[in-house]
Amino acid sequence: MNTTTQEPTIVNGVNVTQLLTTIELIKGQPAIAQFKFRATNQWQGGTHNRATVKDFYGALQEDDSRAAMLFDIDEPPVLLGNNRGANPVEYLLVGLSGCLTTALIAHAAARGIALRAVESRFEGDLDVQGFLGLREDVPVAYQEIRVKFKIDADISDEAKEELIAMAQKYSPVFNTVTRPVPVKVGLDRS
Amino acid sequence: MNTTTQEPTIVNGVNVTQLLTTIELIKGQPAIAQFKFRATNQWQGGTHNRATVKDFYGALQEDDSRAAMLFDIDEPPVLLGNNRGANPVEYLLVGLSGCLTTALIAHAAARGIALRAVESRFEGDLDVQGFLGLREDVPVAYQEIRVKFKIDADISDEAKEELIAMAQKYSPVFNTVTRPVPVKVGLDRS
Repeated sequence: MNTTTQEPTIVNGVNVTQLLTTIELIKGQPAIAQFKFRATNQWQGGTHNRATVKDFYGALQEDDSRAAMLFDIDEPPVLLGNNRGANPVEYLLVGLSGCLTTALIAHAAARGIALRAVESRFEGDLDVQGFLGLREDVPVAYQEIRVKFKIDADISDEAKEELIAMAQKYSPVFNTVTRPVPVKVGLDRS
Repeated sequence: MNTTTQEPTIVNGVNVTQLLTTIELIKGQPAIAQFKFRATNQWQGGTHNRATVKDFYGALQEDDSRAAMLFDIDEPPVLLGNNRGANPVEYLLVGLSGCLTTALIAHAAARGIALRAVESRFEGDLDVQGFLGLREDVPVAYQEIRVKFKIDADISDEAKEELIAMAQKYSPVFNTVTRPVPVKVGLDRS
């Protein structure tokens, strides 16, 4: 008797077979697609604080299987810190970079487009007069963020630009930054 | 001859004397307040990529003095990854947590309010049907982010809520998430 197991299709390191199976599962039961991501933060002193990422909810269950991931956050001396970690607005760029990259890779894989290398650089303008409360007319947020992608693949520049457009369309962090997202902040009185 | 050096005022680990000096310098020369923060990203394969944070521009000069800080970004297996790092939307929460905490601490220090401990938790709702391109009516972004702060200090709950309001007002990541910020993404043809 010949028992064969279908080999999964892997493109760009993404298991496209599993991706398509996941999509079919979600079409049948959309609640599988509801995720809740989390972080906690403990102030360490001055501008130094530490975030922890561990559990999340998704695919209808709590997932507490990952080891805790710790992130030190601090400012450079010119912003009153001691360089104990990247600063908060730099972490935002880290998240944006990961999200655009993953969206680009995954959607290229789903279309069967093989990529050899993807690199990108991110730069955001921040006027700290907003943070310091010195001027009401200066945004407290990033004023603009610029991104450049370098893609090594046997496709035209137009096809690369299409991938970059897809990355923006399907990246949750990109769309959280470019659109207004409600953040409800309250006091824990417990 | 008696040479005395003024001791700096430190509140919550923040050098308030340096903070006030910085504010005076910026009032005299607002260009000091213009910062550019940066990250780069290298795709590693599949949903795994790695960001690097190092140099920035601020206080009228390039600063390349920090050691490079590397951040591995990946998805959990249920989202086709291998747990090689926190995922992009979790990094966004890390940045938000650091920014609200720093804004709260710094503005409390500037007002002379001493704090013993500050902890916070963050949770964001994401429907991955948006990321997967399954439904056009589902946001690709976080739908909502909830934050709770626990503050240990000899002040009333009302004063704690005032600090939380200040944190939101002066946090660049909070205002980047809650307001639309332009992100310009292009192909590097070099």
